[in-house]
Amino acid sequence: MTPMTLNAQHDHTPAYTERLGAAKGETVRLRLRTTLPVQSVGLRFVRVGEIELTGAHEITGMEGEGRWFEAELPVHDSRVRYAWQLNLPDDHLNLTALGLHHTRRGFRNWFQYLAGYVAPEWAWKCVFYQIFPDRFRNGDPGNDVQTGEYIYAGREVEHVPWDQPVDAWGDIHGHYGGDLNGVTQALPYLSDLGVNALWLTPIFVSPSNHRYDITDYRHVDPHLGGDVAWDELTAAADAAGIHIVLDGVFNHMGNENALFQAALDDESSPQRALFSWRDEAGKPPYHSFFDVPTLPKIDYRNEYAAQEFLDGEESVVRHWLRRGASGWRLDVAHMIGAGGTDEDNLPLHRILKRAAREERADAYVFGERFYDPEHALDGTGEDASMNYHGFGLPVVQWIAGATYYGEPSRLDGTELADILWDAYHALPPQVALSMFNLLESHDIGRAMFRVGNDRTKFLAACTLLMGYAGVPCTYYGSEVGVTQSRPGNMPWCREPMPWDEAKWDAELRARVRALIHLRRQTHVLQEGSLSFLHAEADAIAFLREYTHRDGRTERAVVLASRRPEAHHVSLTLPAGEWRDALSGQGLRGGKVTLDAAGGRILLQE
Amino acid sequence: MTPMTLNAQHDHTPAYTERLGAAKGETVRLRLRTTLPVQSVGLRFVRVGEIELTGAHEITGMEGEGRWFEAELPVHDSRVRYAWQLNLPDDHLNLTALGLHHTRRGFRNWFQYLAGYVAPEWAWKCVFYQIFPDRFRNGDPGNDVQTGEYIYAGREVEHVPWDQPVDAWGDIHGHYGGDLNGVTQALPYLSDLGVNALWLTPIFVSPSNHRYDITDYRHVDPHLGGDVAWDELTAAADAAGIHIVLDGVFNHMGNENALFQAALDDESSPQRALFSWRDEAGKPPYHSFFDVPTLPKIDYRNEYAAQEFLDGEESVVRHWLRRGASGWRLDVAHMIGAGGTDEDNLPLHRILKRAAREERADAYVFGERFYDPEHALDGTGEDASMNYHGFGLPVVQWIAGATYYGEPSRLDGTELADILWDAYHALPPQVALSMFNLLESHDIGRAMFRVGNDRTKFLAACTLLMGYAGVPCTYYGSEVGVTQSRPGNMPWCREPMPWDEAKWDAELRARVRALIHLRRQTHVLQEGSLSFLHAEADAIAFLREYTHRDGRTERAVVLASRRPEAHHVSLTLPAGEWRDALSGQGLRGGKVTLDAAGGRILLQE
Repeated sequence: MTPMTLNAQHDHTPAYTERLGAAKGETVRLRLRTTLPVQSVGLRFVRVGEIELTGAHEITGMEGEGRWFEAELPVHDSRVRYAWQLNLPDDHLNLTALGLHHTRRGFRNWFQYLAGYVAPEWAWKCVFYQIFPDRFRNGDPGNDVQTGEYIYAGREVEHVPWDQPVDAWGDIHGHYGGDLNGVTQALPYLSDLGVNALWLTPIFVSPSNHRYDITDYRHVDPHLGGDVAWDELTAAADAAGIHIVLDGVFNHMGNENALFQAALDDESSPQRALFSWRDEAGKPPYHSFFDVPTLPKIDYRNEYAAQEFLDGEESVVRHWLRRGASGWRLDVAHMIGAGGTDEDNLPLHRILKRAAREERADAYVFGERFYDPEHALDGTGEDASMNYHGFGLPVVQWIAGATYYGEPSRLDGTELADILWDAYHALPPQVALSMFNLLESHDIGRAMFRVGNDRTKFLAACTLLMGYAGVPCTYYGSEVGVTQSRPGNMPWCREPMPWDEAKWDAELRARVRALIHLRRQTHVLQEGSLSFLHAEADAIAFLREYTHRDGRTERAVVLASRRPEAHHVSLTLPAGEWRDALSGQGLRGGKVTLDAAGGRILLQE
Repeated sequence: MTPMTLNAQHDHTPAYTERLGAAKGETVRLRLRTTLPVQSVGLRFVRVGEIELTGAHEITGMEGEGRWFEAELPVHDSRVRYAWQLNLPDDHLNLTALGLHHTRRGFRNWFQYLAGYVAPEWAWKCVFYQIFPDRFRNGDPGNDVQTGEYIYAGREVEHVPWDQPVDAWGDIHGHYGGDLNGVTQALPYLSDLGVNALWLTPIFVSPSNHRYDITDYRHVDPHLGGDVAWDELTAAADAAGIHIVLDGVFNHMGNENALFQAALDDESSPQRALFSWRDEAGKPPYHSFFDVPTLPKIDYRNEYAAQEFLDGEESVVRHWLRRGASGWRLDVAHMIGAGGTDEDNLPLHRILKRAAREERADAYVFGERFYDPEHALDGTGEDASMNYHGFGLPVVQWIAGATYYGEPSRLDGTELADILWDAYHALPPQVALSMFNLLESHDIGRAMFRVGNDRTKFLAACTLLMGYAGVPCTYYGSEVGVTQSRPGNMPWCREPMPWDEAKWDAELRARVRALIHLRRQTHVLQEGSLSFLHAEADAIAFLREYTHRDGRTERAVVLASRRPEAHHVSLTLPAGEWRDALSGQGLRGGKVTLDAAGGRILLQE
């Protein structure tokens, strides 16, 4: 929660922060707005481990309630921590990213300015749609994997009919036949839904249906249509204004990969250095992903590995950015490292990001960091992480009353707001806006199933997703009500997308579509700052704000309840005229009482 | 605040943590005690960026309410983060260093185990007394600086009579004549007061009265009695069981130092590399402390500097540990670095600490980090910091209603408890117990003056100091009521110690003495864990606990009010029989109402 923040405001938007990404050595004008009876205002920042104080002067001519103060921040380091000090007649307050306090707070709560870091801002304007290619759409049955076509990990692969539910037996061996041709065919559907970016789980030559066991990083799997289908897809997507982010599996490869086979066959081969070899009872003789023998781990101690995958002139990272990808989602980003461990994890991500940006100045690079990613997010490595920790996991845990592992949970809205805020405020603002927000994925249970197949609860989650700070991503099929046949995470969350509209929940789809379009059209939801307005056991509400250079402010309030039936919630809106963005209902600022079931997004007019 | 923690407990004491400082590669048995209706308990820890879960089994035969669970933590890294998971019939909870929550929390809130780090545990048993040598006691008037004896920074030094109040004119030039001979003479006084460790501000040859401008690091200033007085002092202190920690000024030296003079005289001299030279208008041609020309900054880019001061075979750090010092307080620890900046600050502290420990296995090394020191405190560098950020500044700000700069503040007890807890929980437990807690020093205004010369308020602060987690340090003279002639920080806080007992506040001294002795005698105050029991605007209370291997628990509750008159506070004590440690009043556990004015320490019997 962010007590008192409405009394003093500072954020990353243009009225408050002249510009983001100024280079080291430059200075940046920062501003504070306050309705408190301040006598003076100062800006504190950390330099050479010491807190320096510089005065702020009052400025006039700005719109909006309150007085404005301006100060100059010397961007003397790659990350500069700063805070405001407000001097009142009988008190003084410190404004940090955590809010207003009477003490200095720890530096980890201070605002942070990243020197020379420019986020891939196009991503802020996107709604992503995650596609697991084998399950989304079969555009060319002629390229399907056939039953018995090959053997992988000791078992024949199988072709599974599209309408047959997922079965544990088919876990990685059952291929439904989805392909990139199908994705291309579905672009009009996706555009209509409102999405303008896709994250495709791996598409390169691989034996399993998930394709995280890559045999050849430089070619699209022929069962997905091969490189031709990729070229067709990127051409069509480009024409439709849809970005495509690929899944980069750089921690491990598939054991059928020629690089690994060469290393295995010949101890003196140069490929040998791509892996870390060991002799441990009961384990493969090389480090591998969770000791699975088919997934040998890449060892970045040797320059060869970084050259091949990350930053060599012809690296995989560069190759697909040249061929039309807009960025990379990095599989198990936290594991990548040297010597069979995560050693050098952050330095490796730095060279990966640098190479990606050289190839495409606005490449969007975000890591799968399923756990707390704060330490990795200073702008030098990944732009952002998949926001399981700071968004998706707690949000669905709150609504579902259980974690994705089925552990029951009585997490309430007050604590939910606290953990969301805790995770948000700790990030640099551009990083927070670039966080890849999601409710579900191919790895964890579908949100719809987890909330008991209750459409209202799912819509509450979806409203939070579309309203939250960070880039929203929906999971294929959720918009039409795809759910699971039984509890659990993968493979149950990977049912094929139904293309028979009779099987769709049309009302759900209309609501989700409206939320996606709203997000796409609403600048403040894309780039605004975040603060929490209200929290109670069953409901939370937050405020998004974007203040233009002249002080004019766009505002949105996002409210959601976890109850399936009407649930009236009282909260205080900032003054002014408001409108429910979906129902059109008009509202006057101040105290209001609203039905929060299913979620609402209110816009200030 | 630490809600719910009494329902589930884990800390660093032997019942819960088998041992501290196990080496990397070992495993450590950890335990949890809970009164919640758990069905099972697990231990989560972070390895290769991933959260692993290991089961805990229930154990029996332990004392204390509730059930006990035990699990093994693999100490696989230099700092391992861990948390407990408690599974209940319809809920599950995560216990981190921050308390019980329904979500995983960020890793920064998790418990932390430091591999191979052993704290200087003798310091935990100490009450320190800070001496500013020129102002404590004149043991030998024959060695006094005489008026006009030498010129420093363009002005003659002056001899100032002991009973003449501090004057800004004499700031660094006025010498009162205190010396180490006087400290030796005062050892019986100090022992009677209960202190068993001294921190002496610099004692080496220097022109100013504060001696942070050192001319010769290898000799005690003749005006303080020279090396002979040091040997006499250490012999007598040793006999009295009193440790002495010296002040290490390793960021800068005095411009009269031969090393600097050689560098200045001859650009080709090897000493030239000890400094970083520059050409900036209006600044000395070398980096210096706050651009003061008499305080040239030492540049550790060159190996020479580290050899000379930190870790060479004959380094200053080693020299004085060999000659009887028990440790080092490091002046402006956060500034030390290479190239005129704080670059390499932490690596330099690591080599300093390693050298100190080689010389004296239990050397206590703590940094002056006036600002948030969390990033520096992982056990590899300094053992601890001066706890301005996490104790002294907020505590006195709360009681005084103003910061040390005189900025008015309405900080209340609720927020005070929050910031103290925030700073405490973020530290490894051995570091938290080693933090150098203080209310005041030679750098900031005296606490007595800042609380309006109100004895009751001062005693409340002193009670918090003696009861808090970390090593308490009192400032010379505060026990007898030394205050200031006017507001401000230095030099006003450096009045000479009155030795005429008629000038003492005898009642104050008796109360402070009782608190010091209580701290010395009370193991749970020295080594117990910390949690907050109560907070309101004008009062806070915290609990200290130490649980022996068999589950038997020592407990103390520390309560303090900032009001000068009787102030009744209600709080809930853990069950059992309690006693006010100073008044002897008996109390029964459960809800109690007590006068908190002046502070109270309650012990469980």
